[in-house]
This record gives sequence, structure tokens and C-alpha cells, in this order.
Amino acid sequence: MSVAKLPANITRTDRQMADGRVIRYYDSKGQSRTAEDKRPAETQPEIGELRYDALVGEWVAVASHRQNRIFLPPKELCPLCPTGENPGELLTEIPESDFEVVVFDNRGPSFRSPIENFELPDALSTETLEGQAAGKCEVISFTSDHGKALKDLSPAQVRTILEAWKDRVRELSQESYIAHIAPFENRGEEVGVTLTHPHGQIYAYPFVPPRVEKMLTAAQAHKDRSGRVLLDDVIAREIKDDERIIARNEHWIAFVPYAARYPFEIHVAPLYPVADLAELSEAASAAFPEIALEVLNRLDGVFGIEMAYIATWHQAPVRVGRDVMRLHWQITSVRRQPGKLKYLAGSESAMGAFIMDLKPEQSAAQLKAVIL
Amino acid sequence: MSVAKLPANITRTDRQMADGRVIRYYDSKGQSRTAEDKRPAETQPEIGELRYDALVGEWVAVASHRQNRIFLPPKELCPLCPTGENPGELLTEIPESDFEVVVFDNRGPSFRSPIENFELPDALSTETLEGQAAGKCEVISFTSDHGKALKDLSPAQVRTILEAWKDRVRELSQESYIAHIAPFENRGEEVGVTLTHPHGQIYAYPFVPPRVEKMLTAAQAHKDRSGRVLLDDVIAREIKDDERIIARNEHWIAFVPYAARYPFEIHVAPLYPVADLAELSEAASAAFPEIALEVLNRLDGVFGIEMAYIATWHQAPVRVGRDVMRLHWQITSVRRQPGKLKYLAGSESAMGAFIMDLKPEQSAAQLKAVIL
Repeated sequence: MSVAKLPANITRTDRQMADGRVIRYYDSKGQSRTAEDKRPAETQPEIGELRYDALVGEWVAVASHRQNRIFLPPKELCPLCPTGENPGELLTEIPESDFEVVVFDNRGPSFRSPIENFELPDALSTETLEGQAAGKCEVISFTSDHGKALKDLSPAQVRTILEAWKDRVRELSQESYIAHIAPFENRGEEVGVTLTHPHGQIYAYPFVPPRVEKMLTAAQAHKDRSGRVLLDDVIAREIKDDERIIARNEHWIAFVPYAARYPFEIHVAPLYPVADLAELSEAASAAFPEIALEVLNRLDGVFGIEMAYIATWHQAPVRVGRDVMRLHWQITSVRRQPGKLKYLAGSESAMGAFIMDLKPEQSAAQLKAVIL
Repeated sequence: MSVAKLPANITRTDRQMADGRVIRYYDSKGQSRTAEDKRPAETQPEIGELRYDALVGEWVAVASHRQNRIFLPPKELCPLCPTGENPGELLTEIPESDFEVVVFDNRGPSFRSPIENFELPDALSTETLEGQAAGKCEVISFTSDHGKALKDLSPAQVRTILEAWKDRVRELSQESYIAHIAPFENRGEEVGVTLTHPHGQIYAYPFVPPRVEKMLTAAQAHKDRSGRVLLDDVIAREIKDDERIIARNEHWIAFVPYAARYPFEIHVAPLYPVADLAELSEAASAAFPEIALEVLNRLDGVFGIEMAYIATWHQAPVRVGRDVMRLHWQITSVRRQPGKLKYLAGSESAMGAFIMDLKPEQSAAQLKAVIL
């Protein structure tokens, strides 16, 4: 695996926060980052529990310290803004008075570094049904500009975000207790966002998450059967069908998948496939901001309102399936009409069986019709 | 498999609706049901599509005729109320001016009976990625009383509902194109309910739904390993732990599961295990209303407000896993505090990895503390 380091123009500066957490500044102009976190040190929550749900064979993380998270604070109380320069202003999570992109350890993490050597219990061969919620949860603040959205940023800024994602995947992959890494963005109160400042999260799990495990099973079966990589064949089919493709450049393709399960669902994949973000080439990285911004602006353009969405990087797990799993970015929106959402109720939630009210070709047509 | 028929005091009367659908009246006093559906006949929508999502190996149903469902109508426009006796009143889905419990074919079904012999395509061995959305979707109106909830009904009425569920499972199991049957209730606008009249749905799928498939895999592996039935061992553990049990009688037990994934989650299971609703004994059926009503009233009692929930019967699929899968009723609520919901965002939705903010023991204690 050839792993790209940060490009020459991007620097990373790590600083310790008052409570021992780490904040990483990703900068494109070699800025010096020396500001101290002046808040009183807070006791860090204990590591959470993992409990095995034997009925479905899945781990559930119990993070009961998360109940009292800050809920939709106004701008002057936003913890993801830079710290103001005037006395009396809020001391935020970011001590500097300005930043490009920062990644810091989540204050109320669902998963955190284990204190000692960690091993996930083998729930299938023993009676053990619990473990430690080892892993990492990080927050990525996309910009210092509280009022913007990811789609409003410059291509250069999106490139810095992409480099931060790549760097975190590269570094977190080194940790023996981490099995899978998922950078994602939740946007909109409709999907439970509690901070409106444009930001994402990076979850590093001690197990391969259930949905990734399903992808791995499907990809391995396809490889065994055909000798080919599943996502390659899926994309070949999308290119052949053509009508669900909504954006394309020399390195990336964006489409509404044939079997979309949300009213608006877009997958963005590199045309030269790689296993994970860390393996993205310089050329593919350079070509990403353009298509990412186009896709996000098409999505908001459909109804002329800010669409709630979940945008997640799917990639190969850290140590398994690296020959069959391929990087792609899945954006799913539950909004089906300006005033109507799709809810995951009995069929979706309890049975896992999705019902799509909108034909994928129809939502692709709506996305393509947006004038940018 | 011994299949219970309707008890002697329950009668079922089938009537044809104007558009050819069937409505079934379940009555406890031998009522005569002769009212005609006086609405103009409507053309039935075509059968929908099934599309195979190769990336995860799951079928998705495309039901694009469902976009314009009626949305939270006032009582006088409620289609699940009886039809009024005065001229000019709404002709509802139920022609009679009164009823106890009715089950009728959904007007905009996600799945419907195939016209010819149906076979689910084998997506794994061929290039075929699409099929017909064969199956059945039925609506069960729990009571003629628009303003009540399931929890407000009498034990006798809940018993009639249970008999209707059992009867539908028994009958739908005869259809060769049906692989799994799931009676469920969505309650509350928070889970997307579009009709407030107390009602449930019965989905009969042409495939084993993904979450049931996972349960089947886990149950089969447990049987192979231990020779025992998984749900039996899960319940034995709950009885041993004791602290998450919230209600119990001679035939049923209700508990917050050890690895609950929702702030309030309750599983209700028979102590003498059976594969599905159709196999429930007379004694177990008679003992169900009491514990069902207790559990639902405890749930609404926690915050003193109507809790949004999804309540689903999990049971063995029609033709597979009948020796390892066991009937139980799962009730999940996304409300974690009076003003706060749990949302399924990046980790849950995209990764399938659940994070629980509340310890199951804590939510069990809150449920137990409710004074009924």
C-alpha cells in the first residue's frame, strides 16, 4: 500500500488542549499555531462499554456520558468557532483566533483510546458479551466561518479538508485497536445535528461496523464468483446505464445508485479505484473538490433549500478486505419533498428492508436539472 | 406445526371493497357485516419493482406510487374511522358504521400479490438485479375509536387484535411468494406516521428481510455451536440478570435487552417459546393483553407524554429457520428525553453501528418506576 503524505503546501500543527486532548491544525500557508487553550482542565469521561447484541450478532456502544451534549447553541456560544480575541468572549474548542481546518478529539467520545492493550472479545466463541469501547472519535471543523456550509467553501478549502481526512485515516490506521475508519458529515437538524457550524466527524471503530461487514461479505462473494471487484462492476453498470450519472470529471464519477434507498442518494467514486482515502493519488485528490462542490450544490438546488444529509466515506477496513473493498463517498438525504421527510419506520428500522418512494432515475433527473 | 384457528368467540367476515381489495372484520360478538363500499372504483397501482443493491446484498422495493399518501388528516377525513351514517360524511376505508378490528389491503402497497407465478430472482448467481415487489401490505385498524391509542384499549379488544395478527400470519403463510411476515405498529409523527388513528401494518415480504436474515444467521450459528435456541439463552440471561425485567406474568416476560440500541427499548417474549404468532397457544394468547397494556402504559408513563415508537413482531420466516427462530415483540422508542430524540445519523445509518446514550439498566429502572 502506497500511502500519500500531506502535500508540500499543507502543514499540520498539533497542540495539546487543556484537558489533554489533541487539536490538529491543517494549514495551506504554513501558519504558526501557538495559542494556548485557556479553559480550566476538565476531567475526561471514562471509556465506554461495548455490549454484544447476540440476537443479531452486532456490537452496541454504550456512551451514557453523552446525554448532556450542547444543543444548537447560538453563534456566540459555538464551540467550533475560533476563540475570539476580546476578553470575555467564549473560549471555544479552538484556541486560535483563526484557522483553516482543524481536527480534534471529541469531548464526549463514543469510542476512545484504551489505556492498556486492547483486544475485542470473541463473542462467538466465549460467554463474554462485553468489552471496552476502544477507538477514536474526532471532530473536523471544516472552516472558521460559522455561517457557511461545506458546499459554499472554495475548492482550495475542500482540498485541505480532504487532506485532513486522508491524514487522519493514514494515522489512525496505525493503531492496533482500530479496525475501521469512517469520516462522515451529518447536516441538518432533521438528522439530529446539534451544532450548525459546518463540521464532520471521524469515527474509528474497534470492529468492522455491521454495514461495512455486509459490504465486505458481498464484495468477497463477488470476487470469489467472478474474480472481479464489486464496486468496479457496480460503476461499470452505472456508466453503461448512464441515466443516473449526475456529475463526472477525469478522476471521479457521481451517480444516484440503481438501488438507491433514500429519496436523494448520491455515490461519488474515484474512476481509478483505491482501497481507502490514504491511497488517493495527487491527481484524484486535486480533482475531488470540483465534483464534491458540484454534487452538494446540485443537492441543495433541487428544492432550493438546505438539504439535510449524511455524507460518509466508505472504504476498506484497516486490516481486512483491502483487495475487494473500494473507497467511495455516499451522500443520503431523507428529504423527499420540500415539506416531507422519509422516515425509517417498521420496514426499514425493524426489518432492514427499504422502501423507496421515488424512482432513482427520477431523483437523478431532478439533480441533473439543477442549474448551477 | 400446530396452527391455532380463531377462538370460538371470534368471527371473521370478508368483504370486497369497491376497487377489489379485501377488508376482513374480526368480531367478538358475531356481528353481521354487510355494508357496501360505496366509493367509485379506483384503478389499483401496478406492482412495484424490486432492485438488488449489490454493494450490501439486499433487495430494495421501489414503490413510486406512494409519494402522494394522505398526510395527517383531521378526524373527519380519517380513512381508518368507520363510515358515518349521515349523508355527506366521508366514505372511509371501512364501509361499516362500527367495527371492532379490521384488516384490509393497503391502498398504496409497497408489495402486492403477483399476477402470475412468482419467483425471486437469484441475484447472486445471475446478472438479474431486478424483480417484482411481490408480497402483501395490509393495514390493521385497532379500534373504531379515533382518539384512543393501543394502550387505552380493553384487554378484550387487544385479544381480538392479537387474534387478527395470528390469523393473518396463518393465512399469509400459505402464499408461495411470501417468505416473511412482520406485523408492526409505527406510532407518532416522530417516526413518520401519517395517520393518527390507532393502527398497525402487516408486511409480507417475498424475501427474508435483512435484519431477520442477520437474526437467522446468529440463531443458526448459536444452534450449531451449542445445540440451543438463541432466544431461549438470551431470555435465560435476562432472567438471571433480573434488573432489566420490567413486567412478567405466567406466560410472558418483558425486558429492556442487555444490548438495547434505543433509549427506550422493550422486548416482550413468550416464556414457552413458539416460532411465530400462528403457533401461540390459547393460554399464551389469553395472557398477552395484560402484559402488552402494562408495557405500553409504562412507556408512556416515563415522561408522561405519548412516546413515539415502532413495535414489531419478530418471528421465524415462513419456510426457513423455524427450528431456531422464536417469536417476540420488539418495541423501540427514539425519545431519550421529553424534548430530545435519538437520531440515526452517520454511525447508525451509514455504518450500522449503534451508540446508546442511556444505559439499558437506567431505562429499565425508569420504566419500572412508573406508577400505573
